[in-house]
Amino acid sequence: MAKNLKKYRADFPILKQLVNDEPLIYFDNAATVQKPQVVIDTISHYYEHDNANVHRGVHTLAERATEQFEATRQLVADFIHSKSADEILFTKGTTESLNLVAQGFAQNRLKPGDEILISIMEHHSNLVPWQQVAQKTGAKLVYVGLTDDGRLDINDARQKMTGKTKIVSLTQISNVLGSITPIKELTRMAHHIGAIVICDGAQSVPNMPIDVRDLDVDFFAFSGHKMGAATGIGVLYGKNTYLNDMQPLEFGGEMIDFVEEQRSTFKEVPWKFEAGTPNIEGVISLGATINYLKEVGMVNIHAHEQVLVADLIPMLKAIPGVVVYGPTDIEQRSGVISFNLVNLHPHDVATALDMQGIAVRAGHHCAQPLMKRMGVSSTVRISLYLYNTLEENQKFIEALIATKEFFKNGTI
Amino acid sequence: MAKNLKKYRADFPILKQLVNDEPLIYFDNAATVQKPQVVIDTISHYYEHDNANVHRGVHTLAERATEQFEATRQLVADFIHSKSADEILFTKGTTESLNLVAQGFAQNRLKPGDEILISIMEHHSNLVPWQQVAQKTGAKLVYVGLTDDGRLDINDARQKMTGKTKIVSLTQISNVLGSITPIKELTRMAHHIGAIVICDGAQSVPNMPIDVRDLDVDFFAFSGHKMGAATGIGVLYGKNTYLNDMQPLEFGGEMIDFVEEQRSTFKEVPWKFEAGTPNIEGVISLGATINYLKEVGMVNIHAHEQVLVADLIPMLKAIPGVVVYGPTDIEQRSGVISFNLVNLHPHDVATALDMQGIAVRAGHHCAQPLMKRMGVSSTVRISLYLYNTLEENQKFIEALIATKEFFKNGTI
Repeated sequence: MAKNLKKYRADFPILKQLVNDEPLIYFDNAATVQKPQVVIDTISHYYEHDNANVHRGVHTLAERATEQFEATRQLVADFIHSKSADEILFTKGTTESLNLVAQGFAQNRLKPGDEILISIMEHHSNLVPWQQVAQKTGAKLVYVGLTDDGRLDINDARQKMTGKTKIVSLTQISNVLGSITPIKELTRMAHHIGAIVICDGAQSVPNMPIDVRDLDVDFFAFSGHKMGAATGIGVLYGKNTYLNDMQPLEFGGEMIDFVEEQRSTFKEVPWKFEAGTPNIEGVISLGATINYLKEVGMVNIHAHEQVLVADLIPMLKAIPGVVVYGPTDIEQRSGVISFNLVNLHPHDVATALDMQGIAVRAGHHCAQPLMKRMGVSSTVRISLYLYNTLEENQKFIEALIATKEFFKNGTI
Repeated sequence: MAKNLKKYRADFPILKQLVNDEPLIYFDNAATVQKPQVVIDTISHYYEHDNANVHRGVHTLAERATEQFEATRQLVADFIHSKSADEILFTKGTTESLNLVAQGFAQNRLKPGDEILISIMEHHSNLVPWQQVAQKTGAKLVYVGLTDDGRLDINDARQKMTGKTKIVSLTQISNVLGSITPIKELTRMAHHIGAIVICDGAQSVPNMPIDVRDLDVDFFAFSGHKMGAATGIGVLYGKNTYLNDMQPLEFGGEMIDFVEEQRSTFKEVPWKFEAGTPNIEGVISLGATINYLKEVGMVNIHAHEQVLVADLIPMLKAIPGVVVYGPTDIEQRSGVISFNLVNLHPHDVATALDMQGIAVRAGHHCAQPLMKRMGVSSTVRISLYLYNTLEENQKFIEALIATKEFFKNGTI
């Protein structure tokens, strides 16, 4: 039986406000989540007591900052069950993490005719970097399709994994459809044909327990701000052997060993990938976030979101004119739901909901090829987190019905 | 007459602590500076009231976050006297800014035999990227030397600027010697031979008024955390015409216009260089920092630091066995002073000072070629900021004399 998360809601100060005279309902968590007070306080405390640059100093503040910074690397490693902290690189977010693998690792390995396999539901950050690498190397970018209910089509993946497939890069959870992809099974298939597997965990790490060793992925990328930490901080996990093969893309202080006038040698992994002063505050906020999420329990967060989704989808579908996208089986879903209302533009729906205090997102959600595959230009997206409630679901449905009534003649 | 800055010291909460039972004296400002309470509060306020992802949302929080984010771009433009906010790119720091110019702009223009001119006192972040570009393009990396008192040697620069020189990239203030380079004069010389000029402003923007149009540099890079903002945020200014020629190095959400399966088109400058969720909090903290620094006054900060340096250098030089590096003319110096004590290892000096509550840095300061030129492997570095005082200078000198006494037999 999953823990009731109700008491944790009070930890999020931003939720205690009115927006357009209504209590804020924040349903835009796939874009970024709100921060618990303990994370905000950790940032303030760091600046009020310990702020210094890391690694380079022998003075007390520098030692305190460095200790917190490197302790977080270990916390991250433990949180995703990586073998060691050396496999954890700090980046500015999922986008940088994926660009680093694409340009620093894959690009050096790919030859003309090789294939990169991604799915049609990838976020642009796990798509445009591969287009670029394909253009530079002559490799071909191949797409795995979807089932009719918006899950990755395993049979299609199996057919498209051939001797030519060198790279397989997939999102664990679609940021549009909420569908959960069985990464472990796909990784086994990909390894069987000798491909390297990269997983975009931007939407999964905040919402479910992750074990990179169990998944056996070769690289795994995610962002702090979608979990409760600061913006500007992300992670790239990589198996040691592959990280040692990867080339840094940025050069400067901190990542070097010796610099002569015409040449330089670089530090060991992970530091050779972290040029310049890192986002120290971001890293420390990520540590506080992980400690907070561990206390709530990732199993509980996932279960809570499934309860919310199971409650919401039937109510949504019961509204005439609503089309809900994505898996019908709740077990295969996380807390992201995309939908449209017939004859209403998603932006008008989102604006009308905002007038009632409800924050949702409307647009292509950085997934234009998926939109095209779905035959729409945009959707309304709800995305839930640990602090959302069944009462908010109810209010949201009432507001949506009111919106439909308000725009009864349609907006498109 | 410059303003007395004494009252501003109370704005920095971290300074109100004891370190090793002594009042903290923070003399490590070239590494990172401390944050005024208003910046810390701005970060907390943002997370407690307005946190959302930018650009993509129509809801109230997203609009508030986007408004603050883009207003900061204008603030930055005004602060460095750029023509327009479109010339301001947000990066994660000076290192990323310089890598972006080197790899995204210069690399596409350089041919074998072309020359890149930098100085021997560049920080690794304005040196290693150029080594890489030189290796990739066949261009030659050429160094401008120093005068005996540690200033850039203008005559040497004049001789080395030839028809082959395509790129000139110089720091405005040395992070080791504190010497101020006459960038305006050098830019005029470089433009005369048709070279593009990049300026590393990491050490100058926090400490003196900057007018990029008056300097006429083509690119200008700096970091937020050295001014009082969060880590993980920096700026690249570039003249419009050159930014339009520059290629992005990272690909993903936010920077695209249209994404099809095999190709994508990118947004206009500056957004095409900002892939993924940006460091929103970092940007907003930079805005608060700029407003704070404007209130104190950059002219006043520069004058204050020169008073401190003029006070400190003679006292340092009066201690037998102390060697002070860098310009003897105070007018040509900022608030950075490197020195060594004969027979004492800089790290031992820094550690002994820390025992007395004083934070200084010891090491190569990410400038190994400069260390080699200076004939040392490391120095002790003091670096001052607006909150430092003449009283701290006095205590520092007493602590240094005590350190010398303590290690009277030497440590090397």
